[in-house]
Amino acid sequence: MERIDLNCDLGESFGAYTIGMDSEVLPYITSANIACGFHGGDPLVMERTVAACARAGAGVGAHPGFPDLIGFGRRNMAATPDEVRTYIAYQTGALLAFCHEQGVRMTHVKPHGALYNMAAKDYALAKAVCEGIRAADESLILLALSGSQMLKAAGEMGLACASEVFADRAYEPDGSLVPRSRPGSMIKDADEAARRVVRMVKEGKVQAIDGRDIPIRADSVCVHGDSRSALDFVKKIRENLERENIACLPLERK
Amino acid sequence: MERIDLNCDLGESFGAYTIGMDSEVLPYITSANIACGFHGGDPLVMERTVAACARAGAGVGAHPGFPDLIGFGRRNMAATPDEVRTYIAYQTGALLAFCHEQGVRMTHVKPHGALYNMAAKDYALAKAVCEGIRAADESLILLALSGSQMLKAAGEMGLACASEVFADRAYEPDGSLVPRSRPGSMIKDADEAARRVVRMVKEGKVQAIDGRDIPIRADSVCVHGDSRSALDFVKKIRENLERENIACLPLERK
Amino acid sequence: MERIDLNCDLGESFGAYTIGMDSEVLPYITSANIACGFHGGDPLVMERTVAACARAGAGVGAHPGFPDLIGFGRRNMAATPDEVRTYIAYQTGALLAFCHEQGVRMTHVKPHGALYNMAAKDYALAKAVCEGIRAADESLILLALSGSQMLKAAGEMGLACASEVFADRAYEPDGSLVPRSRPGSMIKDADEAARRVVRMVKEGKVQAIDGRDIPIRADSVCVHGDSRSALDFVKKIRENLERENIACLPLERK
Amino acid sequence: MERIDLNCDLGESFGAYTIGMDSEVLPYITSANIACGFHGGDPLVMERTVAACARAGAGVGAHPGFPDLIGFGRRNMAATPDEVRTYIAYQTGALLAFCHEQGVRMTHVKPHGALYNMAAKDYALAKAVCEGIRAADESLILLALSGSQMLKAAGEMGLACASEVFADRAYEPDGSLVPRSRPGSMIKDADEAARRVVRMVKEGKVQAIDGRDIPIRADSVCVHGDSRSALDFVKKIRENLERENIACLPLERK
Repeated sequence: MERIDLNCDLGESFGAYTIGMDSEVLPYITSANIACGFHGGDPLVMERTVAACARAGAGVGAHPGFPDLIGFGRRNMAATPDEVRTYIAYQTGALLAFCHEQGVRMTHVKPHGALYNMAAKDYALAKAVCEGIRAADESLILLALSGSQMLKAAGEMGLACASEVFADRAYEPDGSLVPRSRPGSMIKDADEAARRVVRMVKEGKVQAIDGRDIPIRADSVCVHGDSRSALDFVKKIRENLERENIACLPLERK
Repeated sequence: MERIDLNCDLGESFGAYTIGMDSEVLPYITSANIACGFHGGDPLVMERTVAACARAGAGVGAHPGFPDLIGFGRRNMAATPDEVRTYIAYQTGALLAFCHEQGVRMTHVKPHGALYNMAAKDYALAKAVCEGIRAADESLILLALSGSQMLKAAGEMGLACASEVFADRAYEPDGSLVPRSRPGSMIKDADEAARRVVRMVKEGKVQAIDGRDIPIRADSVCVHGDSRSALDFVKKIRENLERENIACLPLERK
Repeated sequence: MERIDLNCDLGESFGAYTIGMDSEVLPYITSANIACGFHGGDPLVMERTVAACARAGAGVGAHPGFPDLIGFGRRNMAATPDEVRTYIAYQTGALLAFCHEQGVRMTHVKPHGALYNMAAKDYALAKAVCEGIRAADESLILLALSGSQMLKAAGEMGLACASEVFADRAYEPDGSLVPRSRPGSMIKDADEAARRVVRMVKEGKVQAIDGRDIPIRADSVCVHGDSRSALDFVKKIRENLERENIACLPLERK
Repeated sequence: MERIDLNCDLGESFGAYTIGMDSEVLPYITSANIACGFHGGDPLVMERTVAACARAGAGVGAHPGFPDLIGFGRRNMAATPDEVRTYIAYQTGALLAFCHEQGVRMTHVKPHGALYNMAAKDYALAKAVCEGIRAADESLILLALSGSQMLKAAGEMGLACASEVFADRAYEPDGSLVPRSRPGSMIKDADEAARRVVRMVKEGKVQAIDGRDIPIRADSVCVHGDSRSALDFVKKIRENLERENIACLPLERK
């Protein structure tokens, strides 16, 4: 039976600030990427979010970002590989403490925002991301963009990895994401999005924006829980997947 | 043969800012309390400091503080026990990642500055400190002020602990430290300081500021490496201890 | 004709985080206390909030707090008077730049959260608050708790000040606020709250929690805009005040 | 009589961290660029540094940077023009408060580090820098790299500006600085550096790295005070300038 993981960013609230609809989306996802305090999240939120994931049976992953709280980790920063490696290790280690506290085995690490985007394309940063994960725990799974430099670096280093696809985004013929600023970059219809994911899982293919089919590996699909419509989207994706007999399950460490 | 640990705060530099004389003091100490990014330290400094300790054979401990970089963690803050527990777990976990990276087994956790002082006297915070350590790794040793609420809480929770004494500070008859603002609070002569430590180790006693002998347990003595004179002080303490056949050795986890 | 100012904390959003219902409450208030980046707010939010106040005709004030974003400035911190003076001056100056940009004359400064509470009772901090305001602009009005050390210090220094009352809080016989943890501390009925404010303005009196009338000076009443019910509360207060021919007007600098 | 300003970055210490040799370099410079808390500096340091400049007779300028304390503002960040404008206004306003407190008239604003470098080449950011300065006080002088987009934007907006040159750096034929990574990028001999500055002031020319003379405007020369050798460099530059009858004087607002 085919399977896929549904991952969502969680635990991005900070102090008095609430963001996201964590408790609403949790029943529909199989993995959570938990913010680790640099771009969002704080120690109390992290502890609480790990506990909520444990109760819901969702896989727990770290979601480390750039030290840019004011920019929510969404702004490119000229950080060196040494900085990136230690930022990843630091944040992953911090979340591991809350996993240990609650008897949860962390499954994965997915870099956040600008760090994810930069390391997808830059091999030196990609390698630094993998080294940071390995520093904290060499049996963790890197969750990263299909076809990215991060997956390449993980493969070379022998780090387990999972290939992430996007249900709501169009793809370029080379397998990269069509920038949001371009027309047609977003797949807004949930049923169409679900059909695309089903095909990625069953056939390993997706239709690129120019109409051609391209190969794609789908271990996990990224979903969002930050609005009512995002929640509806997740529900429909999940319903479609299950109707097609694709099991929705967390990533699994060896 | 009697033994004692000589601990010193290390790795408090941050970004472009250097503080302390870490490489100079490292040869004379047996344990380092490494700052974890809240009151000082940053991920790069943490990684580098763990590596330096490993090379020098010094025991590595976490030195978590309040999230108050501008105040260097020295200002009392009305943090709740929940906040304190998660601050300790977060920072300890972060440092554990760098220990794991370098094959170093972390020995202990010593809270920093205002957090150390507040938790020494406040049982609820003391318990929160112990819970935070246990969250990250239940076999770590709490290093805390002799006679403090922290040692009491650790004992009740079954957390390993070590009793810290101060070579350069006078003691009240109740075993607490004489506040720095009071005359006679500082022991400035290194030989006298060393003699006091030797007696704490061999006899389990120290002369309080009023002249009476009081019982004290000395598992580790706190030294400083932030000035040339502090370095001289450390060297003399160590020479005196070794001359008296007291072994200077890191703390040991069971 | 009697008058009063209705002040509300605004502009506490930060980066990707939204807090408060600023645009909804703005039509009902006459003064805004704008967060200045330490406990909440950021430069973009500050600029935008000053602009919104200018459009709405609300008086603009600075709302400086402790440098404790993670605690939203609500936690007591052992800051020195020198630190407090410079924190106030820094934040007030920062907001003045956005006022200058938009041709708005800032009216007042109201310290936030724990800083407000600590400086209400501690004369040295109260004086530091006033010195910080005077540093930035000596013609600004300090807005602070009726009967507080802040108003006392302002009076002694010749700094203009306005006495703040709380519509939704009970008072002790000595004029201080009944702590929120005590039963009866909150006035939950908007009509009753409004009647109390009307009496404060017209008679200079309020009934304390023990039933006795005490004198109180009401230049400005603090309202909230962080929930639907808070909005309803503000509307009712304002309706009641206007029905009683009390003019709702911003504070006025000489 | 010809004149030039000698500017130096000051007040970059932060909390417990000291950086730079501010008091040693102050007697030799005519203008200070004071850090404003984002990349370095804190409110207490800012107040103290303005006071020191006032005593020494040095012109006071703001030195705003990116919100990247851990990177000391030296890392490029993908900030938008709106963000840059408000960052500049915020930091300049904050320093203006301490100038106002001490009766000092701020002369100029010089962006720091990565912000300086990015805005030198990017017109949209350059315009944002100028708008941020104008927001805080439209009569301030922008101090920026000779030939940069910042000077161009200032000219177009009618903002006063001063052209900065570097005594210790080689120039490309197009007037830009030779990157530090390239051989020959640094002028290490103080006498040669001084001769180059003298020629810039007297003839409006400098020899580029390819040997050709290029035009350059020198209103202010950037010097450093972060090491013993930097101090010697500054002294020699100043001696040479005065020997050549070039007056060393602060920038002057109209």
